[in-house]
Amino acid sequence: MNEENYERVCAFIKQNKIDADPDVLFTALCHSSYANEVSQTNEVDVQSNERLEFLGDAVLDCSLADILYNYFELTEGEMSKIRAMVGSEVVLSKVSEDLCVGEFLFLGKGEIASGGAERPSILADAFEAILAAIYLSKGFKISKKFVFNHLFKYISLAVEGELFLDYKTSLQELTQAEYGSRPIYELVGSYGPPQERIFKVKVLINEKEMGIGTGRTKKSAEQMAAHRAIDSLKKKGVETIND
Amino acid sequence: MNEENYERVCAFIKQNKIDADPDVLFTALCHSSYANEVSQTNEVDVQSNERLEFLGDAVLDCSLADILYNYFELTEGEMSKIRAMVGSEVVLSKVSEDLCVGEFLFLGKGEIASGGAERPSILADAFEAILAAIYLSKGFKISKKFVFNHLFKYISLAVEGELFLDYKTSLQELTQAEYGSRPIYELVGSYGPPQERIFKVKVLINEKEMGIGTGRTKKSAEQMAAHRAIDSLKKKGVETIND
Repeated sequence: MNEENYERVCAFIKQNKIDADPDVLFTALCHSSYANEVSQTNEVDVQSNERLEFLGDAVLDCSLADILYNYFELTEGEMSKIRAMVGSEVVLSKVSEDLCVGEFLFLGKGEIASGGAERPSILADAFEAILAAIYLSKGFKISKKFVFNHLFKYISLAVEGELFLDYKTSLQELTQAEYGSRPIYELVGSYGPPQERIFKVKVLINEKEMGIGTGRTKKSAEQMAAHRAIDSLKKKGVETIND
Repeated sequence: MNEENYERVCAFIKQNKIDADPDVLFTALCHSSYANEVSQTNEVDVQSNERLEFLGDAVLDCSLADILYNYFELTEGEMSKIRAMVGSEVVLSKVSEDLCVGEFLFLGKGEIASGGAERPSILADAFEAILAAIYLSKGFKISKKFVFNHLFKYISLAVEGELFLDYKTSLQELTQAEYGSRPIYELVGSYGPPQERIFKVKVLINEKEMGIGTGRTKKSAEQMAAHRAIDSLKKKGVETIND
């Protein structure tokens, strides 16, 4: 890793007080698009975060299972359901946003141009890879603590039945209560070859654009747009049912 | 736990040199049939191993992910595939057999009568619950070591492409328990030049076709057909021995 990249990784460590080795964390922040680009251009072998993501996914599941087992009186069926909600892309990408992961990610030029730093799947995968970097550097206990610190509020909400991952429904309820109108979704466009098509959707509230989302399906793009609209309404002080 | 049960748990600990608290291990060995029976008969609340099984499944996945990540040079797709094979009911029940778990399990009278102590699903679940008991008693490192000691040879076989899961035996056990009959394999045909011949086999249960398989040998085609038959029986809600 060159000096510039090293400084970026250290800035991420400092900003979020992350207890991990910078070299492993660098790999955790390397999206495959960046690793491919660098490897092709500079003939230097840069690993992507895909293997770390596999490991981090397992560390996450185990940490969540531990927390659910020890802090709550739930059946195995309930634990399984709640873990799936909390470990979902929607929640993990939100946590990554809180950690400003997008600002520190290493992405290929194409990904940067198409807004990869804000794409939920990339952010959620990066969260898992970062968790694996902590696990490899400091062991299971410290990585579990990281999960606890960043996900316990979502676990509690889910246990209480108050974690709503359906942002479209949440937004509709919100706008009807606040403005007496429903959000309208419009397809802005779709890009890429058929098997890798990305849809881009905007959501309008009272004819005003309130959020844009992208996704592999129109539905997931709409969910992301709704999520963003909720966030910007929140910033305006509108009380939401999500968060 | 009464004195008799305590002695049984301690005998299990001694025989297998298991590093876990006897009280937690007792729960790990309590099948739901036993817990229900005792709770109903004696009005004493005995927990079954189901919650521990949920936790143990996560500890197992995380331990396997760690071992695969650190000991082998595999892609995330390969790691995922191998973990699924090694963490399967066929393998876990085999390990439980090696530990003589069946002799120490606490089962309800009905389960004892119907051979529950030898049923692969019960044995595999108990393995996971025992692993969780070790994790809760001694922490992640010791539980990972337990996984390493008992599963590394299966991991190595799987990585080398030499772990063959015996679906034919599993299907036979299942159909005999469920329908009192054995599966019948019929050669549908063989195709291609001699050195690249592909065999196609169907499996019949009570004269009904339940799965088709292909392979380079009749035996491997039969295994695939058996695997498919197990999957379709599972979808019908038949409790299977292969997961």
